[in-house]
Amino acid sequence: MLERPWLPRLAGDDLLYRRLFGFAGTEAAVARLDEANQRVVQAMRNADPVAVGIQPAGKVVPGLEGRMILHAGPPLDFANMSDPVRGAAAGAVLFEGWADSLPQADELLRAGAITFDSCHHHDAVGPMGGITSPSMPVFVVQDRAGKRNAFCTLNEGIGAVMRFGANGPEVINRLNWFKNEFGPALGAALRRSGGIPLKPIMAKALLMGDEMHQRNTAASVLFYQAVMPHLVAACSGDALLRAIRFLGETEQFFLNIAMAAGKIMGDTGHDVGEGSVVTAMCRNGYEFGIRVSGLGNKWWKARVNTPKGMYFSGFSEADANPDLGDSAIVETIGLGGMCLPASPAVIGFVGAGGFRKGVAIFEELQGIVVSSNPGWTIPALDGRATLIGIDIRAVAATGVEPLINTGIAHKVAGRGQVGAGTVTAPLGCFEAACQELGRKLQP
Amino acid sequence: MLERPWLPRLAGDDLLYRRLFGFAGTEAAVARLDEANQRVVQAMRNADPVAVGIQPAGKVVPGLEGRMILHAGPPLDFANMSDPVRGAAAGAVLFEGWADSLPQADELLRAGAITFDSCHHHDAVGPMGGITSPSMPVFVVQDRAGKRNAFCTLNEGIGAVMRFGANGPEVINRLNWFKNEFGPALGAALRRSGGIPLKPIMAKALLMGDEMHQRNTAASVLFYQAVMPHLVAACSGDALLRAIRFLGETEQFFLNIAMAAGKIMGDTGHDVGEGSVVTAMCRNGYEFGIRVSGLGNKWWKARVNTPKGMYFSGFSEADANPDLGDSAIVETIGLGGMCLPASPAVIGFVGAGGFRKGVAIFEELQGIVVSSNPGWTIPALDGRATLIGIDIRAVAATGVEPLINTGIAHKVAGRGQVGAGTVTAPLGCFEAACQELGRKLQP
Repeated sequence: MLERPWLPRLAGDDLLYRRLFGFAGTEAAVARLDEANQRVVQAMRNADPVAVGIQPAGKVVPGLEGRMILHAGPPLDFANMSDPVRGAAAGAVLFEGWADSLPQADELLRAGAITFDSCHHHDAVGPMGGITSPSMPVFVVQDRAGKRNAFCTLNEGIGAVMRFGANGPEVINRLNWFKNEFGPALGAALRRSGGIPLKPIMAKALLMGDEMHQRNTAASVLFYQAVMPHLVAACSGDALLRAIRFLGETEQFFLNIAMAAGKIMGDTGHDVGEGSVVTAMCRNGYEFGIRVSGLGNKWWKARVNTPKGMYFSGFSEADANPDLGDSAIVETIGLGGMCLPASPAVIGFVGAGGFRKGVAIFEELQGIVVSSNPGWTIPALDGRATLIGIDIRAVAATGVEPLINTGIAHKVAGRGQVGAGTVTAPLGCFEAACQELGRKLQP
Repeated sequence: MLERPWLPRLAGDDLLYRRLFGFAGTEAAVARLDEANQRVVQAMRNADPVAVGIQPAGKVVPGLEGRMILHAGPPLDFANMSDPVRGAAAGAVLFEGWADSLPQADELLRAGAITFDSCHHHDAVGPMGGITSPSMPVFVVQDRAGKRNAFCTLNEGIGAVMRFGANGPEVINRLNWFKNEFGPALGAALRRSGGIPLKPIMAKALLMGDEMHQRNTAASVLFYQAVMPHLVAACSGDALLRAIRFLGETEQFFLNIAMAAGKIMGDTGHDVGEGSVVTAMCRNGYEFGIRVSGLGNKWWKARVNTPKGMYFSGFSEADANPDLGDSAIVETIGLGGMCLPASPAVIGFVGAGGFRKGVAIFEELQGIVVSSNPGWTIPALDGRATLIGIDIRAVAATGVEPLINTGIAHKVAGRGQVGAGTVTAPLGCFEAACQELGRKLQP
């Protein structure tokens, strides 16, 4: 297992630690951090996320009560909310029946009649806008090795979808179908299965060209295969055919499930309560936020970057919304942009170059993590393990920012996806977190 | 598209052509061959194999009549039949009800009461022993761009299976289930689907780590997904659950379908009737045989090699049967051992080394083909096209033999698979075919 060689070298480098921490650091303090970090990544690796059911968010997500809507990323004032997030929120208000029309929904939002909070504050994660309201069905993912649950909405497919801010009848109708037919049916299948363990699916999907952020083609069809015997037993007729068709068409269906698995793994590491490992990364279209294992529940934030990448025909960077979504939780556990060589087809799709460039990026990113995850391997690197445990010291010291694969949203609500690319986690978050860690460590 | 650069250099190389062809060759004759070869590979690429149904072999396979059994590879005398093939044939006699016991079946075989012929002579292909008898259900694969059909039995999964010579009750019971329930159900689903085009599944599976000989994990689950909406409409209850379970467990299920697709592509190339391109490669456990586009239906044969590779625990090369099966048709169309870098996980599994070694092998094999197939690409090589059109001149001139990924059968019938490895197509076939081509070309 990879154990980062740069850490011992950093220890005793007074100037570097002075810059990172605001004081020189001590051998003992650094050794304690290193040891804690190994416990954090071991906890992350030990987590055993299992998809056990689907329930209305309002029934299972802790603290999601009344007229409350969750969003992706760190906490966000309505004033700073980008257009796709506002559009999605208005759609959710309409879907919940809190308003009869979109203008009325918008009015309620502007009047502050709807409470907003981060998904991450409620054991949940949400893609892009991440809008999650009480009546939406969510995956219930349970840690079989611990006590945590994590929740995530169901992937809506492509085209006009709420996560990109669309809120027309097509979007609301799909959510009603999720709520009334598809969610209950798939949930019954998951219950009947006794739970579908996610780590084996993710391990196998890595051998099949997924990096599980931009590409979930393999993981989605493996999930389809795992759930199918139970789905045909749990429902029938047209409801079954509709479910089969939707699952078969939705190649990113597993992304939301992988995100819930990542939330379990990240939070399980966070529960260690020590160390300098990043346990969550997320974006709300305005700011990028990270949480660090030894720094409690505070978010370390910086203005979010706009992705670089490949734009669909007719669009350019001028159309792009600043980056958003909780999906960077998959990079937090070493997938997505942190394991490009697992997914050669994605490297080009996100505009990151060819396979060799992907390998070079992976090798650079190896310098900012504290360990590897032998349970997940990269076939084209002869089974080398994926990375795990982004160390804020390493990021701040080297300036190498974690790389995130991402879809690019149009900045106008509901226009949808305009491309795919990569975005880096801004250095500022890591530097600020290091300073705070320094204050905590100071003798 | 790759067009081999060595061919123009060979033209006019009197000594080389004298060795290959038995005469010096002429610029005009060589140019005609080169031009014909491009038509052959274009025909192979243009074929559009579609899985349209499943029928009893005796109903659809041309010329499979009476007490006749088809086997893999070039024609084979009973005296030269290796033990796994004999075991499978005895099992087929029992399955057909031509005998009441295995000893009685064996007696019929020894007495010559059963007619044998090559699958390839009947538009069919069969894995390992390749034993195909009239009551066995076979896939019907149709060329939507031409008039050909091809047929292949259904993959039996792993363990005790007829293709490795097993013939006990478990094997016969499975074949009866294929015949009475699974085959008709899956066949009804395929008919209901209007036909499932195979080239897109194969293209996608190449992006998902399959080389489609030793690894069909992706292709099998993609086929599962494609057929499922029709399967749930075509059958129900326990029959549906049994079908879903078997398809879900059988990771090599697609191999037999890929073989039928390969048979269509190879024979469509062969129909051009000119050139020096290999249009079939197969083995019967005794001899290796090839067919060449410009040399009619004759088989060019040499003693078959025994695979080199990784043996399962407790087995060694001493246990291995000489190579067998029609599955080398997938290498004939550029997959399997001809595209190792598509399947990094397989390179180690067959004992061929790491990813870089796989790339080096691919680059060497590039020297023996006349073109590439842009419809199928290799993601870890940044989308480079797979190879197509093995040229007997190139093999004979360079001594680089086509590489085949293969399962290794125990030499005693029914012991099953003892490992996986690679085997080369023996040079002798290619040299003999070149000599004949020379005789045809001689002015």
